[in-house]
Amino acid sequence: MSAEKILQGDVRATAQLIRRIDDGDRQVLEDLAELYRHSGRAHVIGFTGSPGVGKSSLVDRIVAKFRQNGKTVGVLAVDPTSPFTGGAILGDRIRMQKHFLDEGVFIRSLATRGKFGGLTRSTTDAIVVLDAMGKDVIIVETVGVGQDEVDIVHSAHTTVLVTVPGMGDDIQAIKAGLMEIGDLFVVNKADREGASKTLRELRSMLQMSGERRSTLGWEPPVIATVALENDGVDELYEAILEHRRHLLDLGGEVLKKVEASRIRMQLLDLLKDGLFDRAYEIVGGAEGFDAMVEDILARHRDPYGVSVELVDRLLGGQSP
Amino acid sequence: MSAEKILQGDVRATAQLIRRIDDGDRQVLEDLAELYRHSGRAHVIGFTGSPGVGKSSLVDRIVAKFRQNGKTVGVLAVDPTSPFTGGAILGDRIRMQKHFLDEGVFIRSLATRGKFGGLTRSTTDAIVVLDAMGKDVIIVETVGVGQDEVDIVHSAHTTVLVTVPGMGDDIQAIKAGLMEIGDLFVVNKADREGASKTLRELRSMLQMSGERRSTLGWEPPVIATVALENDGVDELYEAILEHRRHLLDLGGEVLKKVEASRIRMQLLDLLKDGLFDRAYEIVGGAEGFDAMVEDILARHRDPYGVSVELVDRLLGGQSP
Repeated sequence: MSAEKILQGDVRATAQLIRRIDDGDRQVLEDLAELYRHSGRAHVIGFTGSPGVGKSSLVDRIVAKFRQNGKTVGVLAVDPTSPFTGGAILGDRIRMQKHFLDEGVFIRSLATRGKFGGLTRSTTDAIVVLDAMGKDVIIVETVGVGQDEVDIVHSAHTTVLVTVPGMGDDIQAIKAGLMEIGDLFVVNKADREGASKTLRELRSMLQMSGERRSTLGWEPPVIATVALENDGVDELYEAILEHRRHLLDLGGEVLKKVEASRIRMQLLDLLKDGLFDRAYEIVGGAEGFDAMVEDILARHRDPYGVSVELVDRLLGGQSP
Repeated sequence: MSAEKILQGDVRATAQLIRRIDDGDRQVLEDLAELYRHSGRAHVIGFTGSPGVGKSSLVDRIVAKFRQNGKTVGVLAVDPTSPFTGGAILGDRIRMQKHFLDEGVFIRSLATRGKFGGLTRSTTDAIVVLDAMGKDVIIVETVGVGQDEVDIVHSAHTTVLVTVPGMGDDIQAIKAGLMEIGDLFVVNKADREGASKTLRELRSMLQMSGERRSTLGWEPPVIATVALENDGVDELYEAILEHRRHLLDLGGEVLKKVEASRIRMQLLDLLKDGLFDRAYEIVGGAEGFDAMVEDILARHRDPYGVSVELVDRLLGGQSP
């Protein structure tokens, strides 16, 4: 059991468990069950936006602000183009080095995934670990496209949507579906041409859009930043704290709602994976599974019929 | 059964079934099983790349080329920023209108998804439908980030990766993981500054990278296009056909391998969903599921323990 070590804040044990989660190791469930009981205290903040909008620089600055104010921070980068992950350019990596030397900051990227695991699940599990480890704030950085990302964002208490001037397509994407999930909007690289136009567009879009997903009475601010110059970062930091206060003022009900939606997603993922893993064993592991694939490839069977039959065989006749 | 109508090429029945697939309707399995037996003939082409690189304009041009050559085409847009989907700007929508009047082209976007369905699954199912309907070519357009997209791309015979000049982050993403899955590389908007540099970078990256995923002896070409001016489109079209010929020359084994990987993914998704759906019923549907969520929310239980216990209860004691 590495749970006890993690509860004492052991960095090595934490890193190990998160790596095992990311690898899709199923033996982590016992530790996670133990850690779960000690979780639920951290403020989870999602940062999302297209590659190249400067999410990581912004997260870097916000991490520094939280540290200045004595808060411990965990960062989970689930963005394949993030400098925290392998695909990074050297400069970005060096930029983050200062946090690597700070024990109050724990940074991990989640990129690879277990054969049958999902990115959403790895992320929710890693949040539980960092939360139980005692981090006050957990920042999850994702690329804002794909259902995985939207699901991940749903598990944050506060969601920051980042864009840059002149990204027309980005604005379209925000319009298309991300608008409802943003609690704060940032136009980064705001020293670029077209910044005021983008700010204006976002603000009018927000005025036209309806209810926020869960945070009644909250007017999402639109903040201009230049992360590299540290411009606007204080304002963003204050807005994040204000959103947190707003959530708490609503009497805990809203935070519960966010947590319930995360638990729902988590339980769904765990059950799907758990049932499939067991069924996979029952049909004879890789060998049995491949035999079914071969049958379908030869068009003796079809995937739809095979799955219906198997579900009937394994779960047929069971009742509540 | 709408399968017969679809096999006769009925557009309305096809559209209906795809909408039901996209809605996550489980009653479609019977139709899909029937259609599956008549599928496997179409050439499936994936187009992937970041928002704003002009994938849709390029797909538009390639569709026109296939039509000029007497081929029927199905297009599945799984890109939330695509003009085929709701988030489009009017000009793009109008541009595609010409195909809407052409019976040889069937265009659908997959955006919304059923509660427990996945985008990957909707897409593979929709490919089966369009294939059985008799479309010669099926083009799947996705945003090139997120595991869903990579999975979808894996089910294509030919994968086209689209980028534009000066997208440093894009190149990083390609480096990070998309490189192996591209059969053809396109630098669109190649009349922009920096085009030759991007072309050069991509070519040298390809030379340094190792084996292609499955297409032995294939040297992925890097093609410059300006979709809006129809520049380079003929070359891209020829390269797509050449890749198809190359696959066929390899004796069918490679095509089989691509198909096996799609079947594997499809069966995995179907089983996961099927097992979960049945388990969901067994535990008492939404009511039973919500009760578990409430228990966890109150921290009487944890999601890990609940899922392990439930899997044991439902599948424990069963053997091969």
